[in-house]
Amino acid sequence: SKNKNFSFSNRGKTLEEELNESNEFYLSRSIAVIHKKPVPIQIVHVKYPVRSAAVITEAYFRSPSTTDFNGVWKGKYIDFEAKETTSRTSFPLNNIHDHQVEHMKKVTEHDGIAFLIVKFTSLERYFIVPYDYFEEKWERKIAGGRKSITLKEIEDMSIEIEAGFNPRLDYLAALEHLLQSPIKERIERQENE
Amino acid sequence: SKNKNFSFSNRGKTLEEELNESNEFYLSRSIAVIHKKPVPIQIVHVKYPVRSAAVITEAYFRSPSTTDFNGVWKGKYIDFEAKETTSRTSFPLNNIHDHQVEHMKKVTEHDGIAFLIVKFTSLERYFIVPYDYFEEKWERKIAGGRKSITLKEIEDMSIEIEAGFNPRLDYLAALEHLLQSPIKERIERQENE
Ligand SMILES: [Mg+2]
Ligand SMILES: [Mg+2]
Repeated sequence: SKNKNFSFSNRGKTLEEELNESNEFYLSRSIAVIHKKPVPIQIVHVKYPVRSAAVITEAYFRSPSTTDFNGVWKGKYIDFEAKETTSRTSFPLNNIHDHQVEHMKKVTEHDGIAFLIVKFTSLERYFIVPYDYFEEKWERKIAGGRKSITLKEIEDMSIEIEAGFNPRLDYLAALEHLLQSPIKERIERQENE
Repeated sequence: SKNKNFSFSNRGKTLEEELNESNEFYLSRSIAVIHKKPVPIQIVHVKYPVRSAAVITEAYFRSPSTTDFNGVWKGKYIDFEAKETTSRTSFPLNNIHDHQVEHMKKVTEHDGIAFLIVKFTSLERYFIVPYDYFEEKWERKIAGGRKSITLKEIEDMSIEIEAGFNPRLDYLAALEHLLQSPIKERIERQENE
């Protein structure tokens, strides 16, 4: 198992916060322009008090039709969903929405780069799961197979992100590795073994 | 002046709605994956009633740090801000935020395609103003020059979007024209005239 030198700096931080910090670092160093999308809200009532800012007094959360983060890196369109799990053995597929999968599929078809970033919170391990590989496991679920991707499968087919100080999660370095060894070739290699 | 065959279908629609419709068309035809980003909201209070959905009871609008729309088209990162003006003669620069300009500049530096879509509502005319050209005029303003871009300047240096039925605004067709005749060359040509 891995040495976790940096676990102290992670205390109480959500994956979203860690990714926001990493994206600020990328932005400040001119490495990439990637942002968290705002949470979609349906606004029902707004008050406009005299001499102060408008107040939303009734609104509801809407389920997102796309993913959490997108932006541009080296001219490439980057799009990903961030998910945490407390499981130590597998990544459950039950809190990913159909329309998010559909969105990632479309991004891939238009030559964007779509993936998931999965954090195993209990293990403090982070992985990039490329969309092509995720799709295989999503279809396995739809076909009646298991409703999760095992940690072992993720270890074999994803790229682990090293947690550090600055950037907290250098996921673009991990992505660079992935692009040098395309997932389709890796899936084929695995199938031939 | 231009013939406005399609003006009837535009009644009461905002530029944002017209662009959302156009993006739905692009998505349904597998032309591009471009979405409006949700409005950023700062949530202060949420109630969780028994047996019904969470209600946001106090929240405030935050000023956006990026632009209105982004996505992927032919593998390219697309990013733009949509603005309407009731002026018949010029596009005022006063309701564009510094950080939005900064964002478009960074997108351009990372080889994304950044631009503004400007609607002259009284004229029912729509233009793509490429970021490079916009930047010139923004810097003119900062240097103490005029606080708007004249319609004449926009007519000379931008690409007009034809309003139609489906898609309502075929801005990617206009963008295609623009990419075939890069704005930097056009600026140089104009300066040499
Ligand atoms: Mg998420
Ligand atoms: Mg706008």
